[in-house]
Amino acid sequence: MSDLAVTPVGRVESPLTDRATAPRQGDEGAPPAWLVFAEQYADALSHLEPGAGLLILTWLDRADRSVLQVRPRGDATRPLTGVFSTRSADRPNPIGLHRVTVLAVDGLRIQVADLEALDGTPILDVKPVLEARGER
Amino acid sequence: MSDLAVTPVGRVESPLTDRATAPRQGDEGAPPAWLVFAEQYADALSHLEPGAGLLILTWLDRADRSVLQVRPRGDATRPLTGVFSTRSADRPNPIGLHRVTVLAVDGLRIQVADLEALDGTPILDVKPVLEARGER
Repeated sequence: MSDLAVTPVGRVESPLTDRATAPRQGDEGAPPAWLVFAEQYADALSHLEPGAGLLILTWLDRADRSVLQVRPRGDATRPLTGVFSTRSADRPNPIGLHRVTVLAVDGLRIQVADLEALDGTPILDVKPVLEARGER
Repeated sequence: MSDLAVTPVGRVESPLTDRATAPRQGDEGAPPAWLVFAEQYADALSHLEPGAGLLILTWLDRADRSVLQVRPRGDATRPLTGVFSTRSADRPNPIGLHRVTVLAVDGLRIQVADLEALDGTPILDVKPVLEARGER
């Protein structure tokens, strides 16, 4: 199967710079961060408002794509497990999935809570958290 | 920002072949489907078991990547909305996100419920649904 090309639509600005000390999940102590979008995607940002729950898809550019099995959460007492059963950043296509809440909107910059991605991480996509079926 | 290369790890086998008639979300009537993985990713599949809740990331290869705004759910009475506030397949990086449940595991083939992706759709990644914090 041939490769597909994804184009980053923006980047993360965050005080987190070191994978070893960043929280493993956004609700485990991540600081507020900014999503900074390229100007050509401005129209795609319309209707984003503070309080919205979003899913951010990123490209975990410091991951090892050759890894197929890991010990979950780096715990040496846990068995080697296929990465498709874990949230390891190391995986064939290191696409990060992050549940965040919008804190502020300032043009092409969106401030969010609970994002554990490192500073400079490319952003691939933004999706709303799905509402209950009757409200879609 | 320069393009990134993603490599499909498998493909969807589904009776769904037509975007116009497929359900818009997996819990809106999608039939069972198979995820069929390339052999080199076999180790990444270990520990996947029936009953597991998974998030499947796909490449929506029939999407229009030039679209930045849509009317949600194709409803002409709703305002044009930035695609980052919708689940439209048409978006700059058409990565599909699907919440499914494993029905059966047969080597490189995983049968799942509630997948609305079309037959032949490339699979990019598989992640477990996150458990409550104490069970990670």
